[in-house]
Formats: sequence, C-alpha cells, structure tokens
Amino acid sequence: MTDPLRLGIAGLGTVGIGTVKIVQRHAEMLARRGGRPVVISAVSARSRSKNRDADISGYGWEDDPVALAKRDDVDVFVELMGGSDGPAKAATEAAIAAGKPVVTANKALLALHGQELAEAAEAAGVSIRFEAAVAGGIPVIKALTEGLAGNAIRRVMGVMNGTCNYILTRMEDAGLPYETVFEEARALGYLEADPTLDVGGIDAGHKLALLAAIAFGTRVAFDKVELEGIERISIDDIRHAADMGYRIKLLGVAQMTGRGLEQRMSPCLVPADSPLGQLQGGTNMVVLEGDSVGQIVLRGAGAGEGPTASAVMGDVIDIARGCDLPIFGQLAASLAEAVPALVTAPAPYYLRMTLVDKPGALAKVATALGDAGISIDRMRQYGHSDTSAPVLIVTHRTTGADIAHAIRRFEETGVVLGAPVAIRIEEV
Amino acid sequence: MTDPLRLGIAGLGTVGIGTVKIVQRHAEMLARRGGRPVVISAVSARSRSKNRDADISGYGWEDDPVALAKRDDVDVFVELMGGSDGPAKAATEAAIAAGKPVVTANKALLALHGQELAEAAEAAGVSIRFEAAVAGGIPVIKALTEGLAGNAIRRVMGVMNGTCNYILTRMEDAGLPYETVFEEARALGYLEADPTLDVGGIDAGHKLALLAAIAFGTRVAFDKVELEGIERISIDDIRHAADMGYRIKLLGVAQMTGRGLEQRMSPCLVPADSPLGQLQGGTNMVVLEGDSVGQIVLRGAGAGEGPTASAVMGDVIDIARGCDLPIFGQLAASLAEAVPALVTAPAPYYLRMTLVDKPGALAKVATALGDAGISIDRMRQYGHSDTSAPVLIVTHRTTGADIAHAIRRFEETGVVLGAPVAIRIEEV
Repeated sequence: MTDPLRLGIAGLGTVGIGTVKIVQRHAEMLARRGGRPVVISAVSARSRSKNRDADISGYGWEDDPVALAKRDDVDVFVELMGGSDGPAKAATEAAIAAGKPVVTANKALLALHGQELAEAAEAAGVSIRFEAAVAGGIPVIKALTEGLAGNAIRRVMGVMNGTCNYILTRMEDAGLPYETVFEEARALGYLEADPTLDVGGIDAGHKLALLAAIAFGTRVAFDKVELEGIERISIDDIRHAADMGYRIKLLGVAQMTGRGLEQRMSPCLVPADSPLGQLQGGTNMVVLEGDSVGQIVLRGAGAGEGPTASAVMGDVIDIARGCDLPIFGQLAASLAEAVPALVTAPAPYYLRMTLVDKPGALAKVATALGDAGISIDRMRQYGHSDTSAPVLIVTHRTTGADIAHAIRRFEETGVVLGAPVAIRIEEV
Repeated sequence: MTDPLRLGIAGLGTVGIGTVKIVQRHAEMLARRGGRPVVISAVSARSRSKNRDADISGYGWEDDPVALAKRDDVDVFVELMGGSDGPAKAATEAAIAAGKPVVTANKALLALHGQELAEAAEAAGVSIRFEAAVAGGIPVIKALTEGLAGNAIRRVMGVMNGTCNYILTRMEDAGLPYETVFEEARALGYLEADPTLDVGGIDAGHKLALLAAIAFGTRVAFDKVELEGIERISIDDIRHAADMGYRIKLLGVAQMTGRGLEQRMSPCLVPADSPLGQLQGGTNMVVLEGDSVGQIVLRGAGAGEGPTASAVMGDVIDIARGCDLPIFGQLAASLAEAVPALVTAPAPYYLRMTLVDKPGALAKVATALGDAGISIDRMRQYGHSDTSAPVLIVTHRTTGADIAHAIRRFEETGVVLGAPVAIRIEEV
C-alpha cells in the first residue's frame, strides 16, 4: 500500500480548490493517516486560465471531465462540479465504467440518480462516497452509515441549508422582513444562482432524501419529499413563535411509520431551548435517532471551502485505507422501494389568525377546532388595532389533514380575516 | 463474504447484554448492512447461572475469557469486561496472538496499554476498535479518526463523564451541596464501585488520552493528563459562575501547542449559552476542532446499555464490511512520543475569595493581581455578612502559573480569608 493514491479532481470552484489546498498543505499527514501518499494527477474545470487561490500548474489538465475520469494516472475521480446531469453525471459514469471509485459533493446528482449510479458502481466493484454532499463538514453520512449501523433508525432530522437558517435567524435578530433579509443574503453571495434551490428547500430536500435512503434502507426518493420553502415565513410568525417558546427552522424530517416513509422538508417550530432551536446563523445540525443509541446530535459548518473539502478528504482517506462499503449502507439492489406515507405523523400545530373584533369571534374559532377534532393546548390573544385581533393557538397533537379541515371551517365562520397560518411543531 | 462473522463476547454486564440483544433483535438488518450474517458463537462471564436480561443458552460458554478468545469458532473477540489489567488484558492479547480483531469498550485498558496492544495488533495484522470506550453512543472515534482525517486537529474538548455532569447540573438545579448530590448519585447507582474513577476525573481522563493520541499522532499518554476532579466544586462557585454567565463542567481539553501537548481534565467555566454550557444531566458532548472543518460538536448518551452496545456494533459492522485501519489512525510505530506542555495555554480565570471587611481590602487584592501581571476583566463584590465580603473576579487571559503567583500574593495581604478559589475559563 505504498503506491500513491492518485486523484483526478473535476471542478475547481470553492470546494475543488479547498481540496487541492489540503492535499498540498498536509501531504505528510495524509500519507501517515492514509497509509500511502495522496497526490493529484490531473484536474479539470471550465477555464484553465482563471486566477485561482492555489497553484495547479503541476497537475495534468483536461478540458473534459470525462477524459479526466478515464486517465490512466487517476485512481479516484473527485467530482466537485455540481449539477444533477450533464458533465457531472457523464464523468461519474465514465469513472465507474473505468472501475474507479468516485468521491463527490453532488447532492443533486445522487438525489436524482443515486439508485442507478449505485447499482452501476456496485456492479463495477467500486464505491461512490458523498460525505461532502450532506451537511458540509459534519461527518453525518459516516455516523449514520457506519457508526450507527447497529441501530434501527427511528427518525432523522436536520437543519441542512445554512442560507435558510441564516435568513431565519437574521429576521429574528434584526426584526427584518423576509424580503429584506433575502436581498441581504443575495448581496452577500449566500444564495445559489437559482435561489429556489435554497429558500425553496430543494437543496436541503436532496440531502434529506440521501439520509433517508441510508437510514431506512429504501431507494433514494427525492420526488417523494414533501417540500415547502421559507418564502412565506413572516416576521410576525417568527416573533409570535418566540413568544410561545419556539423558533422556526427549515427542518428536514424523515421517519418510517406504520403508514410508510415520511420525508418532509418544511418550516417547523422547534422548542427554543432545544439544540435545533438554539442553532444560529449558517451552522448545520443533524439529529439521528436510533433504537439503541437514542438521540445523537451533530453540529458544524454546513458549507464553505474548508468544511466541505474536509468531508471530501475524509472520503479520500477511507479509500486510501481500503475501506469500502455499499453506497447507501447496503447493496443497492437490496434497497426497498420507498412507500410514502400518505398521512404524516400527528404533531402539535401553531396557528395564527386575525379575528374581527366582534363578540363571540373567538368562540366560533374554538368551536371550529373542536368540530375538526382538534384540542387546544395554549392560546394567546394579543392587544389589537381598532377592528381586528391577532390570535395564536398551539394545538395538541393532530394531523395536517385535520388542520386543513379546521382552516376550511374557519372560513365558514366569517370571523377570520385573511388566511390563517398553520405551522407544524416538530417534537424534538 | 457470505460466511457469518462469529463473535465471542467476554463480559455480560450492561454492555455485553446490550450487544447480545442487538444481535438477536436485528439479525436480518445486520446481515444486510454488514454484507454477511453476524452471529454469536460463545460468551464468557463471571457467573454462568446469573439471571440475565437476554437468553444466552444458545451460545457456547467459557469460564475463561482467554479460552474464548482462542476458540476456533470466534472471528472477532468482543471485550466488555473492563479493567486495565487482569483477564481483559490477557484475553485481548490472546485474541491478537490468534490473529483476531478485537472490539472493546475498555478505556482503562487502552489508556494504560494502548501503545503495546496496538503494536502487537498491527504486527499480527488485526485491528482493535474501541468506539464504545469513549463517549458511549457518540461515534466520536470514527468522526475523529476517519471523518476528520484531512484535518490538522487544533483542539479536542469533551464532557465525557455523565455522572460528573449529572452531579454538577443537579447541584445547580436543586441548589444542593456536592456531598448531598454525590450521595444521591451513589444511591441511584450512577457511581463506579470506586467513585474516584468518576468524580476524580480518571475515567474521563482515560477517554481524553485516547482522543489526544488520534488527534495529534502521539502515543497514548494518560500519565501526562493533568487530572483534577469535581470534589472541590462548591454550590457557591456554581451559583457565582452562573451569575457571571458561565457554567462549571468537568471538561477535558487536549491541544497541541508550540510548548507541547496539553491534556487537561479539570473543572472549567464555559459560557452558559455555548453548546458545552447548555449540556444538562448525563449527556456527553465532544467538540473537535480542525484546521479545515472548523468546529464540530457531537452530542449524545455517554453511557448505558443501548448507546454503548450501539458503539460496539458499529465497530463489528465495520469489521464485517472489511474496513480496517490503524488503531490510532496511523501505524502505532509512527506515533510520536507525547511531549507534555509544561505551561498551559493562557486563558481567563474565575477567582472567588472572601475579604475582610476593612477599608482598602479590595485595593490590596487588585494590587496583588497587578503585581502578578494579571488584568481584571470583570469584578463583583457581593453584599456580605458582618465581617467579610465575597468578591468575584474574571481576569483577562493569563497563565495558571501567574494565577498561582497572585494567590500567594493574596495571602501576604492579610485581607483574604481562607483559600481563594481559581477556576480556568475555557474559551469555547
């Protein structure tokens, strides 16, 4: 095992350059830990001449990542281009066909084509490793697939899009509306070119789908993730939730229930004093719950050059050490079809609505809830402007269907102004 | 790889029985994840006839764990007896000599004999895995050795003795003195037979020494860990620390400095709103800091049947999958001798003392601090009984040596009653 492990790195953006820097800075340490030197044979990116934060002149160059994947002097193909299709997919397939393991940070690629790629890789006897695809520097894929392998997993939860968490905590701290903070985040370069990937929950949904596949032994089913972004979260709800002891997070939840697999990526209330509630700014957190281990909480930087490159290198060192395992923790062919739960598990809900200031208005709302079979845990009515009064309700456990039913009944009462807001309270 | 992986489990206490239960409950899942069935061939414990919470009648029995380790039908020796010497060591050595990998929860064994055992295991071409030895169910050995393998580690910190954290948080919550809560913990069965292992910091010190070896590529050096227990922590200090925005934790800190390796297991103040400060009860937390990844925080149950057995099974599944790596993340022969730092890194300190109620007393203390080169960040003087006044001081960064110097100067002033208390504030 003293032959060097030779990397071909496709994509020299933030993560690619971060990876190059680690290889250059820590050659001796990596050789000691990996049991063999780790070197870069060649790289590929859109522009060869671009000014970069690392010297790549000593490496071979390929304009085409597919050619890079096929090079004889590349043992491991490191795919850091991104994009669910196109060159990233073609080059990953080429590497697998050439019998080479792949290390990737590409959550979209695996969320959409994970099953097909895993089957191809396992047929070729190589692995695809993707620690960097989920929650940046947090070694959560490893913790779930390996560390907790002795557990039947009960639930996986996570705040896995730092930009959304930044927006939500900044709204609360500065008392600013969503639109203002969204523009701030854009100006700071925190948003993807297509911001829907972030604020629409798609990026985080990709990550959740990968975690769910490992946790429950099911085929990746991103198309079965219930997706709701943070665009409709108002500063009012953030403030009122805080008054009731909660924070709003874009929370991913995956759990296997008697009704099937639940995968949700949506704004949820969590207790302000829970680890998830205390998470500020761009930091990520993943919570893993197993039948033996109980609850494990992992927290760290979810993006950025250093953290994501750290995850890439963890995978590279595993390959250097000869550690290999099925891509989703068991053979891809043995993964079960994910049967989505049509009804989500019951939970308490937060409701906010504005009532006309008329005698009996609150009674009508309470009656509508009762008719929908929903009982009230706590209620607050706030001081109000001349003709309307905001009301907050925390319900006991109920279902999303019953909440939707109650909201239709509210409309029939004629005392509710505008559309009521309902947000699930995740019990953490 | 369809031959079953056959375990021999020595020690059927809480962790041993927990491990048996997982193998029995999850046979199909373990086979799917490990790529081969995981079975138990034989077990060993002090008493064969003891009533146990799992049916072991289907397994072979050995009175002698050494004989168990040597059995032809045992592929992996699972050592869950405990004890740094005696049968645990003899049986581990026998397993290694027979060319069998060892999975152990035994922190004392590895803290005291890790180098010798690792060298023997590597010479025999087998691994020793010990996830269960540190922080129970938290996969921290894996996170540090594998997930963060691309990082130069800067610092490792941890609250890794649940009993101590239970005692400290219970003192604060209930306002009870140490002695009372200590007796409570004993009655609840939370304490080791020799409670010094817990409250003296020895158990947590063993764990810190193992983490430090992996983090810094140094030979395990438990004898170089500065140990201080929680016996001297008073309810007064817990309350005063809380007033100043801190909590007191038995905190392990290992860091490599220009002066050498620092390993401390001692009561420290940490900010009350930090993840470490918020840790309540018996839960454990480990903080890993790497040059690329930044800060990773891992939290979970640090002890108990399920969590510790989960860690054991994670190691077993790694072996079933054929993942092997050097015991401390690099070959034992390449580990450097740990050169202990003779001077600890500077930090702010918390000082509490009682002054005689005489004009100029505070000035004398302030002068003594200034003479020792220590500047004051914050100071509080409390309302007092007739003749004495408690004073709290938070210093700017200084060294333990300067603090000791200042305390000697305090004694010369004649205005300080009793022994001043000084506790390091760890900057987290």
